[in-house]
Amino acid sequence: MKELNVGMVGYKFMGKAHSHAYKDVSMFFDVPMQPIMKAICGRDEAGVKEAAHKFGWESYETSWRNLVNRSDIDLIDITAPSNAHKDIAIAAAQAGKHVFCEKPLALTLADAREILAAVEKSGVKHMIGFNYRRAPAIQLIKKLIDEGKLGKIYHFRGFYLQDWIIDPDFPLVWRLQKEVAGSGSLGDLGAHLIDMARYLVGEFDEVMGMNETFVKERPMVSEMTGLSGKAADNSPKVSVNVDDATVFIGRFKNGALSVIEATRFAAGHRNGMWFEINGSKGSVRFEFERMNELQYYSTEDEEGVQGFRTIQVTEPVHAYMQAWWPAGHVIGYEHTFIHEVYDLINAIASDKMPEPNFYDGVKCQQVLEAVDASVAERRWIKVDDI
Amino acid sequence: MKELNVGMVGYKFMGKAHSHAYKDVSMFFDVPMQPIMKAICGRDEAGVKEAAHKFGWESYETSWRNLVNRSDIDLIDITAPSNAHKDIAIAAAQAGKHVFCEKPLALTLADAREILAAVEKSGVKHMIGFNYRRAPAIQLIKKLIDEGKLGKIYHFRGFYLQDWIIDPDFPLVWRLQKEVAGSGSLGDLGAHLIDMARYLVGEFDEVMGMNETFVKERPMVSEMTGLSGKAADNSPKVSVNVDDATVFIGRFKNGALSVIEATRFAAGHRNGMWFEINGSKGSVRFEFERMNELQYYSTEDEEGVQGFRTIQVTEPVHAYMQAWWPAGHVIGYEHTFIHEVYDLINAIASDKMPEPNFYDGVKCQQVLEAVDASVAERRWIKVDDI
Amino acid sequence: MKELNVGMVGYKFMGKAHSHAYKDVSMFFDVPMQPIMKAICGRDEAGVKEAAHKFGWESYETSWRNLVNRSDIDLIDITAPSNAHKDIAIAAAQAGKHVFCEKPLALTLADAREILAAVEKSGVKHMIGFNYRRAPAIQLIKKLIDEGKLGKIYHFRGFYLQDWIIDPDFPLVWRLQKEVAGSGSLGDLGAHLIDMARYLVGEFDEVMGMNETFVKERPMVSEMTGLSGKAADNSPKVSVNVDDATVFIGRFKNGALSVIEATRFAAGHRNGMWFEINGSKGSVRFEFERMNELQYYSTEDEEGVQGFRTIQVTEPVHAYMQAWWPAGHVIGYEHTFIHEVYDLINAIASDKMPEPNFYDGVKCQQVLEAVDASVAERRWIKVDDI
Amino acid sequence: MKELNVGMVGYKFMGKAHSHAYKDVSMFFDVPMQPIMKAICGRDEAGVKEAAHKFGWESYETSWRNLVNRSDIDLIDITAPSNAHKDIAIAAAQAGKHVFCEKPLALTLADAREILAAVEKSGVKHMIGFNYRRAPAIQLIKKLIDEGKLGKIYHFRGFYLQDWIIDPDFPLVWRLQKEVAGSGSLGDLGAHLIDMARYLVGEFDEVMGMNETFVKERPMVSEMTGLSGKAADNSPKVSVNVDDATVFIGRFKNGALSVIEATRFAAGHRNGMWFEINGSKGSVRFEFERMNELQYYSTEDEEGVQGFRTIQVTEPVHAYMQAWWPAGHVIGYEHTFIHEVYDLINAIASDKMPEPNFYDGVKCQQVLEAVDASVAERRWIKVDDI
Repeated sequence: MKELNVGMVGYKFMGKAHSHAYKDVSMFFDVPMQPIMKAICGRDEAGVKEAAHKFGWESYETSWRNLVNRSDIDLIDITAPSNAHKDIAIAAAQAGKHVFCEKPLALTLADAREILAAVEKSGVKHMIGFNYRRAPAIQLIKKLIDEGKLGKIYHFRGFYLQDWIIDPDFPLVWRLQKEVAGSGSLGDLGAHLIDMARYLVGEFDEVMGMNETFVKERPMVSEMTGLSGKAADNSPKVSVNVDDATVFIGRFKNGALSVIEATRFAAGHRNGMWFEINGSKGSVRFEFERMNELQYYSTEDEEGVQGFRTIQVTEPVHAYMQAWWPAGHVIGYEHTFIHEVYDLINAIASDKMPEPNFYDGVKCQQVLEAVDASVAERRWIKVDDI
Repeated sequence: MKELNVGMVGYKFMGKAHSHAYKDVSMFFDVPMQPIMKAICGRDEAGVKEAAHKFGWESYETSWRNLVNRSDIDLIDITAPSNAHKDIAIAAAQAGKHVFCEKPLALTLADAREILAAVEKSGVKHMIGFNYRRAPAIQLIKKLIDEGKLGKIYHFRGFYLQDWIIDPDFPLVWRLQKEVAGSGSLGDLGAHLIDMARYLVGEFDEVMGMNETFVKERPMVSEMTGLSGKAADNSPKVSVNVDDATVFIGRFKNGALSVIEATRFAAGHRNGMWFEINGSKGSVRFEFERMNELQYYSTEDEEGVQGFRTIQVTEPVHAYMQAWWPAGHVIGYEHTFIHEVYDLINAIASDKMPEPNFYDGVKCQQVLEAVDASVAERRWIKVDDI
Repeated sequence: MKELNVGMVGYKFMGKAHSHAYKDVSMFFDVPMQPIMKAICGRDEAGVKEAAHKFGWESYETSWRNLVNRSDIDLIDITAPSNAHKDIAIAAAQAGKHVFCEKPLALTLADAREILAAVEKSGVKHMIGFNYRRAPAIQLIKKLIDEGKLGKIYHFRGFYLQDWIIDPDFPLVWRLQKEVAGSGSLGDLGAHLIDMARYLVGEFDEVMGMNETFVKERPMVSEMTGLSGKAADNSPKVSVNVDDATVFIGRFKNGALSVIEATRFAAGHRNGMWFEINGSKGSVRFEFERMNELQYYSTEDEEGVQGFRTIQVTEPVHAYMQAWWPAGHVIGYEHTFIHEVYDLINAIASDKMPEPNFYDGVKCQQVLEAVDASVAERRWIKVDDI
Repeated sequence: MKELNVGMVGYKFMGKAHSHAYKDVSMFFDVPMQPIMKAICGRDEAGVKEAAHKFGWESYETSWRNLVNRSDIDLIDITAPSNAHKDIAIAAAQAGKHVFCEKPLALTLADAREILAAVEKSGVKHMIGFNYRRAPAIQLIKKLIDEGKLGKIYHFRGFYLQDWIIDPDFPLVWRLQKEVAGSGSLGDLGAHLIDMARYLVGEFDEVMGMNETFVKERPMVSEMTGLSGKAADNSPKVSVNVDDATVFIGRFKNGALSVIEATRFAAGHRNGMWFEINGSKGSVRFEFERMNELQYYSTEDEEGVQGFRTIQVTEPVHAYMQAWWPAGHVIGYEHTFIHEVYDLINAIASDKMPEPNFYDGVKCQQVLEAVDASVAERRWIKVDDI
């Protein structure tokens, strides 16, 4: 079988999820090319070496420039913090490598556009890691909408609710630093909902938002562990410069209304991504913590027995599920990455552009900046004006 | 026992709900005054006569002015369409009657303020029909918040989702006519959420909204039945001049963020009023179609066993429930009216002002108009500027 | 309108529920006869007098024999404790009165059969208070089954879970005394499920059960309040002679399998009556604490979008709901009694036998005794052999 | 690191699940020994060769005797159909290999005991594949019970509901053939619940059951695909000799009551394993299709805010979850196998006997046969008498 040689930058949370996807994909799916885990890259040699061993990479690098220029690499996978995306992605494109980049594509729209221009110029394949699209339930929604089962769409409402930083003593980890993360709850959580909305409903026309940083100062982090971290006893208090919560309303070009909220201050919600779409013929509702289920209502059901159906999206007929277990046996979070990688390999093998790709990364970034602008200027912002 | 003589204007949906409340309240509660159903009033003699008989009123009137001036009436209860509230309420106040008025208090804030001035001038008791406050689960939320169990409030998010007018051939009933109803989904549905938010979280500082009328023309109604109606075959198509859906974001004076949506275009939701409040110490979630339940999360539960609790708010310890059935035996929609009437009678008997009263009606109307202004002017509106 | 003069024995929990039904039924339903609340009866004069006043009865009696013999009474309604049912029902029948009796019909099957013989001999109408049949969701299940929507029935599984006597210091109230209540959890709770199963699936062929009294001794009650009560400090400990929990398996004559559990020792369940029916074409699931909802699954839904539907059984098309509020506005526990009384009045007015009637009371009792026999003899018991 | 050389028999559904576990375990967990996927074994050379490649085994065998006797193998993992377990397990034990066997341990209790004797004689480690114990939510239940949080246990009720063979034309796959599968729904599904009950509540004292084969004849399968299969057009109809459904009641030695149902005829349930445990201080409820959640009720919560908590069992504090993703990111079915393998490796490395082991396999089989005996003899059977 043809091989696809992968080099990956980053080895933390996302690096692990992507590594696992490369490792497992061909066990469950019939892939047209076999991904080879050539090299993983990170600045800390001890750390990356251990990760290479643990995750199953053949080698490691401590300089992403070296990695990008290795002749035995076909695909660069970027899971490093957001502020590193741009340089790596552009260099990879210039080196003629396909690029798979975690979201957000970049810290700013301008950067995102530069990246897009680079990959388009070089003609490589590019994909962005909006992995939630790969939940089978989301694919089912897409199918229902494409088949007209929901009719004309009127409403999209979505929340992404988390609660991991409610404690005012929770330290300033990198996701709370604008210069590294680019954004707070909006870019981290809201971006997923914006991508969902674009994917399922269409492009945004205009947006209007507000945000808040409820806890203004936090002790500087001394040691990271996963998403969390610890502050040393004498850690100085530092200003938080990202949003704890953002809410925005918007209008799609097709006339549907949108309301989206992203917050890290919703007690009781560990990772509560939830949205609902209402159309003239039906509605759907999805909750990520129950990602194997879909709520679906059809106005065409017989009168008197209409109601939201709880569909277990675990049957062979559902996207990707033929590869997994018998119906009723659930899959988990990391499966969305395996599905991503599966689709990416297929796209590369058949010389098609994968979706979502950097264009979607740019469009998402555009909405994010439009929301930020609307917050700053306290007025409606046309997304296309950004 | 002392008696409280009631005269009521209106005999449709709300008229029936209020009548039932007067009829049943003393069977379940120990009331300090016995409400006497003296007279019901409506313009159509045949209709009001039949209603008087069916609901158990001693007499009927076809002129509300007659009713208001009857010397044997202590309390005027107004359940007539919204455009009739003002004249009746003011006349009742001037006649020295206590006034209980369905929401919305009036079609405009100016009218609402006039009404408030009138009742304040005459010194009568006044109450407004935000009956949802009287669900025991809402009282439990209030108690939890007052006791500090939720800590500092960060978020209020609420939707009121209905689907009864999705069909474009659904006729233009009075609730879809601005000159009668005053407003569309915002005033009808959103008002309940605004009152909830004010009651539980506090006063709004500023708001920013958008709305939409998805179906621009509808056949004029020929015959009403409940909330619904029929259009004759030759009914002309008429422009719809109220909103089908309104969404707005806002900020409370205490710093909490709000997002509220009201729509009649959410397929699958017959009467889906839903809201969630997140605070620094916990969260609550309520859904009106499961009004006997409350979801409550406390950050103070032991680590590892934290989760939203589904509380059956049907125990003797819960507000009003001592009067009803054993724990686990649910109550329904109309019980909120019985609780309203119970509290109203108690307030009158003890010479205290009931809550919510016309001041709350005015404050709610102020938010509604602020939202409308923000929609019209496409900018943030300070509620107090209205 | 023709009148139906009612005399009722009992004025506690069930007495209140029935009184309320007579009081309200004609406000919401078009009844062919107007029920007149003639007289209520109880042994304690002060208590029954107060109840008569509070519930709206024209008069009261302290001797049920007097009541039964009053010439101005058409219908005797029996809500007294179970050990009083037999004598009153037979006397009422002999006096030519229609009889409406709370479940259980009697303490023993022999008594139940005597009562049935008496009403059949006198030719009066008779009804038994299995009120749960009157929840609109149950009527919807019945309709689905009758229309063949579930196909051939394979399984009935039901639980009635309560938790009010888990505390070993909870006193021995009358429902825990065999000589008054006849039975423990089986007769009180299980009887509702047996009636459901008979109504929806069919007659039982054979049963096999076990039971347990987890708390063997309790302090004798000194003062009752609702279902609960208090024991004086010096109350003696008394042996509990009814079952705390009973579980039985069974087979219906049509071949379906049944499992039924009734317990008062299920922490967290205030009144958790739950059952599910599986057939060759679909399934239904019902939970009394969410009595306005029905879960329905159809194998005929399109592949890939099959799932249990949560139906809000609150629409005009649903049984009884035309009389109530707009769709999505829930009803409560006491509405089942109003529906009972509505159906009873209709049956009497149209000279038809209401359902469920004393025949159903006998059949239910027969199953109860078969279960008891199977527990005592530790073997399968044919229901028809009892 | 020390290595653990694994040889596995079987390469279908369970073979895939186990293979995946060996492949992934050291990526997420710190294992004391590295499992080496030495050889996989199956009778069909083409099939096993492909599986070896796809799943990542170093070599393959077509004779399990060869595999068992290979000197480079430390552990034999048996995922072959149930009728093959005995011979392989005994041979493996005799060859001094550790043995990990899928459930059921054997087709009969006598066989199971022989296997247990063999492993005990040889002193190897042995484990049985009751993988559901390894869901973090189940571990949380175990912890709550061990800490006394549920108090004295009164009730265990569990169902395992599936619907894959409702169609009478579904063919006679091997799971429906007694000589291969040993049992129908009871042994396949009920066994999981019996193991749960034993693990969480204790040993059974006596049981009493019934069963049914609703569809008596089916076309013989021609071609298997996963759990399903196809019958050729001319396939003969064959008698089904396993149970479609089994229900049994039982009593634990500690006095708790049990009811367990296993059926493949519950429309709408793809893989609906559900159980609830009630104790004097609380209750827990688990549903496998929502395996990341646990419902927990504590009587010690404050009055008025008691209710079942929906716990997302996805936090670092929960068993195994430290190895996975941030809180709120769910895991799936196959993770239970990874956890199994992790525990097995640890047990072997530290020279301890893993749990559940063949003793548990024997005890489970004993209950299964007691149930079968109770069905056949229509009487209560003491489990220890089997």
